Amino acid sequence: MTRVLLASRNAKKLDELRRILLAEHVSGVEVVGLDAVPAFPEAPETGATFEENAVAKARDAAAATGLPAIADDSGIAVDALNGMPGVLSARWSGRHGDDLANLELVLAQLTDVPDERRGAAFVCAAALATPSGRETVVRGEWRGTLVRTPRGANGFGYDPIFVPDGASRTSAELEPAEKDALSHRGIALRQLVTHLRALAG
Amino acid sequence: MTRVLLASRNAKKLDELRRILLAEHVSGVEVVGLDAVPAFPEAPETGATFEENAVAKARDAAAATGLPAIADDSGIAVDALNGMPGVLSARWSGRHGDDLANLELVLAQLTDVPDERRGAAFVCAAALATPSGRETVVRGEWRGTLVRTPRGANGFGYDPIFVPDGASRTSAELEPAEKDALSHRGIALRQLVTHLRALAG
Repeated sequence: MTRVLLASRNAKKLDELRRILLAEHVSGVEVVGLDAVPAFPEAPETGATFEENAVAKARDAAAATGLPAIADDSGIAVDALNGMPGVLSARWSGRHGDDLANLELVLAQLTDVPDERRGAAFVCAAALATPSGRETVVRGEWRGTLVRTPRGANGFGYDPIFVPDGASRTSAELEPAEKDALSHRGIALRQLVTHLRALAG
Repeated sequence: MTRVLLASRNAKKLDELRRILLAEHVSGVEVVGLDAVPAFPEAPETGATFEENAVAKARDAAAATGLPAIADDSGIAVDALNGMPGVLSARWSGRHGDDLANLELVLAQLTDVPDERRGAAFVCAAALATPSGRETVVRGEWRGTLVRTPRGANGFGYDPIFVPDGASRTSAELEPAEKDALSHRGIALRQLVTHLRALAG
């Protein structure tokens, strides 16, 4: 069994990666989260791109633990905000990790933006770094539209206001397996599957 | 004396335009504000660009009053926010016209953004529309850097955190005449001077 570290404390992300590896029939890989390894100093995410942040986080985690490490940086790119909140998605309101405040601020900023200009994309950069210094970074995008009223209790972040193209439910109203099949994070993580298989030998 | 309407209720903007016309030796033009004309319904600013908003405002004002009308739409374009707050500058925090909340939100969003990536530009689009349907729109930009702590009591909006390139004071620490000579609004309004002279005959 090859242990791979997912550089996250988010149990939902851990579940998601495990579900994806199962669905892709990847065997021989055991995914552990940051809670399963000794603590190490984590650098703040100050990159200008999702890719920069994901690579830095994976690299630091691999170097600190000696395990191959996966890290992601994700967010929402709103057309009428020129692609922001982007890398600032988690702290858009100024309060890091306050999902509700972040979502409500985006809704308030878009109050006067008409329906035809409410496009957005969820974006995920996922990086895999090995202790020997090999680095891979991939990107997934999921396009949709922002509604005016939050709906749904699954998911997190901006899920309750994002209706994927071709869907009528918000991504917070999708079942986890439905979301995995479509989502930016699913798209990105599946691109890492071949690399993970190679690690498992 | 040709009366020209500045489609604004902001006394500082009115003073500014009058100072600029004086400095440019434009005679025969009397600038009045919205408070000097009968009220008319004003459309919300929903354009995707400063130019769109300025032209729409000037056009509506000229049509409603029968006077040549000037309107501006201005804001700050922050590099690390992909050019936002942009047209949403006045309502960035979700509370329209709350200068302090807007400025504090930008500072909070930029907390982890290092000094070398804190560039920004004040942008002004100024439009002149005549009752006969002639429309002109011009643009002024003023580049600088955003500091972390507000300074200065002149100006408004984002002035207290904007240090113009080549300066050490914030634009809220500049005297009105100094600001006129450099600012986005000064640059834009001076481009309208020839048009205003033509109106004055």
